[in-house]
Amino acid sequence: MAGGAGERAPRPEADARWLGRCLELAARGWGRVEPNPLVGAVVVREGVAVGEGWHERFGGPHAEVRALAAAGERARGATLYVSLEPCAHTGKTPPCTEAIVAAGCARVVYALADPHPEARGGAERLRAAGIACELLELPQARRLNAPFLKRLRTGMPLVVCKWAMTLDGRIATRTGDARWISGEASRRRAHQMRAQADAVLIGIGTALADDPLLTVRLPSGEPLPAGARARPPLRVVADARARLPLDSRLVQSAGAAPLVVAVSAAAPAERRERLRAAGVEVLLADDGAGGVDLAGLLRALAARGGPAPDPARRDDPAVPWPVSVVLAEGGARLHAALLEQGLADRICAFVAPKLIGGATAPGPVAGEGLARMAEARRLCQVRVERLQDDVLIEGDLDGGD
Amino acid sequence: MAGGAGERAPRPEADARWLGRCLELAARGWGRVEPNPLVGAVVVREGVAVGEGWHERFGGPHAEVRALAAAGERARGATLYVSLEPCAHTGKTPPCTEAIVAAGCARVVYALADPHPEARGGAERLRAAGIACELLELPQARRLNAPFLKRLRTGMPLVVCKWAMTLDGRIATRTGDARWISGEASRRRAHQMRAQADAVLIGIGTALADDPLLTVRLPSGEPLPAGARARPPLRVVADARARLPLDSRLVQSAGAAPLVVAVSAAAPAERRERLRAAGVEVLLADDGAGGVDLAGLLRALAARGGPAPDPARRDDPAVPWPVSVVLAEGGARLHAALLEQGLADRICAFVAPKLIGGATAPGPVAGEGLARMAEARRLCQVRVERLQDDVLIEGDLDGGD
Repeated sequence: MAGGAGERAPRPEADARWLGRCLELAARGWGRVEPNPLVGAVVVREGVAVGEGWHERFGGPHAEVRALAAAGERARGATLYVSLEPCAHTGKTPPCTEAIVAAGCARVVYALADPHPEARGGAERLRAAGIACELLELPQARRLNAPFLKRLRTGMPLVVCKWAMTLDGRIATRTGDARWISGEASRRRAHQMRAQADAVLIGIGTALADDPLLTVRLPSGEPLPAGARARPPLRVVADARARLPLDSRLVQSAGAAPLVVAVSAAAPAERRERLRAAGVEVLLADDGAGGVDLAGLLRALAARGGPAPDPARRDDPAVPWPVSVVLAEGGARLHAALLEQGLADRICAFVAPKLIGGATAPGPVAGEGLARMAEARRLCQVRVERLQDDVLIEGDLDGGD
Repeated sequence: MAGGAGERAPRPEADARWLGRCLELAARGWGRVEPNPLVGAVVVREGVAVGEGWHERFGGPHAEVRALAAAGERARGATLYVSLEPCAHTGKTPPCTEAIVAAGCARVVYALADPHPEARGGAERLRAAGIACELLELPQARRLNAPFLKRLRTGMPLVVCKWAMTLDGRIATRTGDARWISGEASRRRAHQMRAQADAVLIGIGTALADDPLLTVRLPSGEPLPAGARARPPLRVVADARARLPLDSRLVQSAGAAPLVVAVSAAAPAERRERLRAAGVEVLLADDGAGGVDLAGLLRALAARGGPAPDPARRDDPAVPWPVSVVLAEGGARLHAALLEQGLADRICAFVAPKLIGGATAPGPVAGEGLARMAEARRLCQVRVERLQDDVLIEGDLDGGD
């Protein structure tokens, strides 16, 4: 495949490096573009970047358009690198393919095919216009847009199960004491994870035991982490019988940070009403057995804001918005249910180098459990990180995006 | 403190570097010098090593003597670096201090004071002979000889609790299935740990559930790991009522690899006799409550071979030998007992990135457990290592050597 007039012969290592740069740029949109995908683009001419861009906010210009605008006339005959296949449809903005053709690019290299039923087909359109177009698929590109891909494929958000445990596998002592298992660096990271999620989900057992607030709290004065969302994460409690106390910290703070309580049909009407009166959004998700239908709850969260949310109200916490990432923070029964029902995509386990022992002290995943070790759910793409003395082990469940 | 005639002014960084080299040399004796300490020595003249040595085998020459012999006349006015304070007594070999004085060294730097009641006092003796003598204490020197230091201080071996668990903190499924939790690289490492231990200890529950062999098995043709002991580790089962079956793999292999079964007074005489007849060493260690006295058992293991074991029979597995390192391989009750009784020194946990769940699936440490998280036993000197997809987390318990 020949390069354009002003472009040297393509080399795979150089292509991968420029796509890596696209991913860096793409990540800058985190927290501002969802439920759109994160996209970054670079225009390269004779081995030099002459224009960069990324999708900065939901409803705003696409990465390719930004990069081409930055490159100007230098885009003619150049290569456009982009982390996602350029769109071929008119959505909130015109098709990127037409902008690429108009700019006169000789070649396009992208890291992930666009699975969107309306936007896909960009590569074909470019080739029809005589532009060399190649997919160099990078696992990192898939990983970066895992929430977008999952929601598109299944109508569900990406679910991250997060816990902190001792080195002997306990999330609390035999008496239920869990403060604190992990160290300061880990707890700070956990708040960053919350900041990067659209919703934080817990079970009623954890709500009653810990009376948590579930807000993002970073030591004051510090900047929000890269990727922190402009809107605070939605707080969600799976609470079949609407037992969440009105004087809990969650309900007491419902005015300041949105709170959803998901109930089953078994929840007394009076309790639901009291919660609503306290500013809580009560959502019925009945599993037909007196419990919360977690799949239904997740689907409802992903569908919040309807099919065409208003870009102008992207950052207004009072406006429902599609949930792309859910951080599930326990307890052990919630994690077990998410895993058993195939709803969990990713595990983040903080392991603290301390021991408490106790045959009855709880582990992070309860439920019935599997019978044979050979059947264990295996994580892939395992990542390990030291956080002071703690160890953060993350991995993706098979079959997830 | 002035250097000797032929020696440049001492620099702390250079001193630490040469002591690091001593520790490397010292480690070469692992598995051959115990219950003696591991010691390495370097003679340095004008910034250049002119002689190296280490303690190679129990009863053989000390590291200093070897290094001085290698240096010959160049030792005069030079600095001797040594990982442990030179001994001042005549044991199986003459005092090292006298060899140092005779060689004419100007300066001695050592990384750890010798706590041995008979051997200590070397630094004083050297100073009295006009030799500059400095302790530059290195934590690695203490760590390298932790088994020696513990045995000397307490009469007990160093106890390493080892387990493999899933990322949700389970050492078996709810049905007791535990094969295999960790991957091949981890299992190989576990066998290396056995090779480096003097004894492997399990509880009778694990013996009955898993019917293990507890021998060192490395894929054939491979060299034994650096530090593998010449004699195979003693296999020990804490088995209060002598329930270990005669047809277990442990008893069946008692002729090939020594096996100790520690029983309480509650063990029926007939069962003890049958075990003895099968070639098993039955050891009475009664805790006064129908169980095995673990502290007594460990003390007995450390004292095996008597106060003056015969160097010539160091590598004969049939001859009892002092136990410096015990690898405790479970189950959860044994780990709990060792921790509760303050007998455990080090934890090695293999964490496999897989999940099995189950409220009743066992964790690695059973027992009653601690009530408050703030009371948790904290590990120090935490070390983290990837072994393929598994994560090995090691640490030392407070108060250990």
